[in-house]
Amino acid sequence: MNQLKQLNDRIVSRVNCNLSEFDFDTEPFVTNALDHDKMLKFYAFYGITSHHPIYFHFKNSNIGGSYFLGKCYVGRSAIYKSDVRGDELKRKGENVRCAMNIPLVEDEMITIRDSLLYKTLVHSNSHNLESPEQFGIHNTVSAHYVNIHGTTLEGCFLGPFATVDLMNLHSCIVGEFSYVQAGELFHRKIDPGTVWVRSPNFEFKYKFKKEILDNFVGINTSYQPRGIIYDFVKEREQDYEKLFDAMNLEPIKAPDSSAVNRYAVILGKTRIGENVLVSQRAFLDNAVMGDGSNAQENTYIIHSNLAGLCVTAHGGKIIHSDVGRETFVGFNSFLNGKPDARIQIGEGCIVMPHTIIDSDAPIKIPDEHLIWGFIGSNEDIKNQTIALDDLAEVRDSLKIGKMAFTGKGSVFIDAFRRRINQVLLANGALFNKGEKRGHAQDDQNISFNTIQPYRTGELKGLYPSIRIKP
Amino acid sequence: MNQLKQLNDRIVSRVNCNLSEFDFDTEPFVTNALDHDKMLKFYAFYGITSHHPIYFHFKNSNIGGSYFLGKCYVGRSAIYKSDVRGDELKRKGENVRCAMNIPLVEDEMITIRDSLLYKTLVHSNSHNLESPEQFGIHNTVSAHYVNIHGTTLEGCFLGPFATVDLMNLHSCIVGEFSYVQAGELFHRKIDPGTVWVRSPNFEFKYKFKKEILDNFVGINTSYQPRGIIYDFVKEREQDYEKLFDAMNLEPIKAPDSSAVNRYAVILGKTRIGENVLVSQRAFLDNAVMGDGSNAQENTYIIHSNLAGLCVTAHGGKIIHSDVGRETFVGFNSFLNGKPDARIQIGEGCIVMPHTIIDSDAPIKIPDEHLIWGFIGSNEDIKNQTIALDDLAEVRDSLKIGKMAFTGKGSVFIDAFRRRINQVLLANGALFNKGEKRGHAQDDQNISFNTIQPYRTGELKGLYPSIRIKP
Repeated sequence: MNQLKQLNDRIVSRVNCNLSEFDFDTEPFVTNALDHDKMLKFYAFYGITSHHPIYFHFKNSNIGGSYFLGKCYVGRSAIYKSDVRGDELKRKGENVRCAMNIPLVEDEMITIRDSLLYKTLVHSNSHNLESPEQFGIHNTVSAHYVNIHGTTLEGCFLGPFATVDLMNLHSCIVGEFSYVQAGELFHRKIDPGTVWVRSPNFEFKYKFKKEILDNFVGINTSYQPRGIIYDFVKEREQDYEKLFDAMNLEPIKAPDSSAVNRYAVILGKTRIGENVLVSQRAFLDNAVMGDGSNAQENTYIIHSNLAGLCVTAHGGKIIHSDVGRETFVGFNSFLNGKPDARIQIGEGCIVMPHTIIDSDAPIKIPDEHLIWGFIGSNEDIKNQTIALDDLAEVRDSLKIGKMAFTGKGSVFIDAFRRRINQVLLANGALFNKGEKRGHAQDDQNISFNTIQPYRTGELKGLYPSIRIKP
Repeated sequence: MNQLKQLNDRIVSRVNCNLSEFDFDTEPFVTNALDHDKMLKFYAFYGITSHHPIYFHFKNSNIGGSYFLGKCYVGRSAIYKSDVRGDELKRKGENVRCAMNIPLVEDEMITIRDSLLYKTLVHSNSHNLESPEQFGIHNTVSAHYVNIHGTTLEGCFLGPFATVDLMNLHSCIVGEFSYVQAGELFHRKIDPGTVWVRSPNFEFKYKFKKEILDNFVGINTSYQPRGIIYDFVKEREQDYEKLFDAMNLEPIKAPDSSAVNRYAVILGKTRIGENVLVSQRAFLDNAVMGDGSNAQENTYIIHSNLAGLCVTAHGGKIIHSDVGRETFVGFNSFLNGKPDARIQIGEGCIVMPHTIIDSDAPIKIPDEHLIWGFIGSNEDIKNQTIALDDLAEVRDSLKIGKMAFTGKGSVFIDAFRRRINQVLLANGALFNKGEKRGHAQDDQNISFNTIQPYRTGELKGLYPSIRIKP
């Protein structure tokens, strides 16, 4: 296990060096996260389809329990129970949109070096114009249930349940349960529970009160998560284990136009409509997935109905809820309805990433609303939602409760709508008569290579170096 | 599946070209063997231990259901449910014994190109002095349950249940159930049911009567096997499937000094002694494995006792039998005892490869005997066995029944004894206080990479190219 110790030390030194100005020590987190017994126990897997470029190369690493798809390189890293889903990587010959047109000379690849990703999702593609062919994650540590979505990273620490979206981060700390989509940041520390969207044309900012956030997601001194959301996922962990124990599982019944990943948990009377995507590590229990809806990685849809064309972004949790048509539920949102206090979200709504609804009384949000922050009761609704029509009228700035918006509301809504449409398109929700294929169609018939580490000897815990090509 | 068709055609043309003088057409066999549905169904696996050099590279191939260990390269080949066990490959720095000493400049590797191996075992290392670092199998087709043991092959067809042992074959046909260990052969056709051992110092030859052989192993017009031995293994095929369905199995109880491969079938009240090796695809049912005994690939030990230090070579079948201490049971032997007609083999016996004992009355062979050919009743014993002491007296030649021996009997016995001792040593049967480690000790704690093919698209049925290194 000597080599695992070296891996541990290397990751700590690289990240700490980048974050020295913050007096931040990654050591407790890395040391606690690298549980050598667990790193030996779980196998890794690489998905093979005929629809994605195939390239997977890793060395000097442990990748236990992780899933890889598309072109990936991993070096000197520990990637534990993470999903590295390269099915949206840019392809050779495509053009990157910026001031100039940059044609890609090769397929984009995810490259992870000297990093620790713990139960993390990596998805989308690099939005860093300087490295269009490389979606790089270097000298970085991400904690439990982080979403690294189209974000290149160098020398960063991302706290539990953080999301970094379509951006570039250099030597930054992102606090637990923070959502950041803010272009490029250098040497910044983002407070826990920050929801921040910044573009040249608008800015949206919200921050959870510390006392509320602590109830749902907090960290203790060794940077391990605690709170209601962490307990919720922890309680369901064992339901995944049977998926990993069997080589061949009876496929879940679903229409030909839909994909239900064999590493998703499907319980109760779950119904899968047409053009539905259920990704690996999604959890469905008595869920109705209306046509064109999706459940991405680490989502939980429990005793809930998604009417149709509903997006549940990575890590979204929808419990005892009814979600209207074309409604978007953002990353890591926690809609925690109760059997006698259901949550009803109207049609065409946008639930901002990292929204928490947790009330003892039923909650009803009308059609076409934006929803954000924390709703703990009916009284909170007025300060955490706005009709999209009203938001569209905003010309300059808006402040509601702890939310501050600047810019044109209509531009913000348009940008969001465009993105939701892109997500639906990419996921195959709009598939029709052989046109507009997406993940729901392309991710069927995946075959899996499973990969195990050395069990004894000096390299115990590390994986042999493997390269997979077409 | 276009690529699979091309693979089919390429193998046929390569082999047929080499065997054109015999007017032999491989096409019916290859076309029948390459069942595309089955080739998609079963995963392949590569074993990782800290005791073997790690290198596995394959491309343009289907390797469904096959197991690989040690350094292997596979190109443009179909390897179906085969065991390619490179744990006895020579290592860099070792010397090859011949007139000169040839030090190996790199680890030996098994290289398989343009070939079809069907339920075949590949083991040992190259005994071809011209290619000490390469154990090559090229332009070759091997049928069901063939043993390719330390034999390089070029342009050959090996019929069902054939064994080629420690030799080199060029453009040869080896008939079903033939055992050949004869140095180097060019453009030869070996009749079915031939048992032939030839060295500079002696020669042993036996040939099964056609009418007897046809009962046990024959082939039909499409080169598919039939007969009692084939039916025997066919009936037990489904017992293996559950091993492949589960990722993690409860390990079989065995002493610390023994290895029971997780891909072996273990049924009934089976007892595993110290220093025992049970290889993948061995089948044990109510078997007593005395200390230092082994059950190699494709062996079946059923309602039988192996006293200790017993070798069951690849494909050996021991049923309702009692085998004495230090007795060797050769490749593909079929000791078919019955509940009321057990077979008893004494101590220190040598059961020649491809021996068949199948009688309705009990059969008892005394200690220290050589046994060969077909024993169908007690009357056959006198023409199929000889006391080793008597054989040792032979100075020039000996003929008993259909067996012809030339050379010095004592030299033949010594050579056999030396080899049995090597086998015991290699298998870890002589392990004692940390000394004399072998497979029984080194093949514990194997971890497995499992590998699956493309399920759709033009490459359907082929595997992506994979390279595994330390």
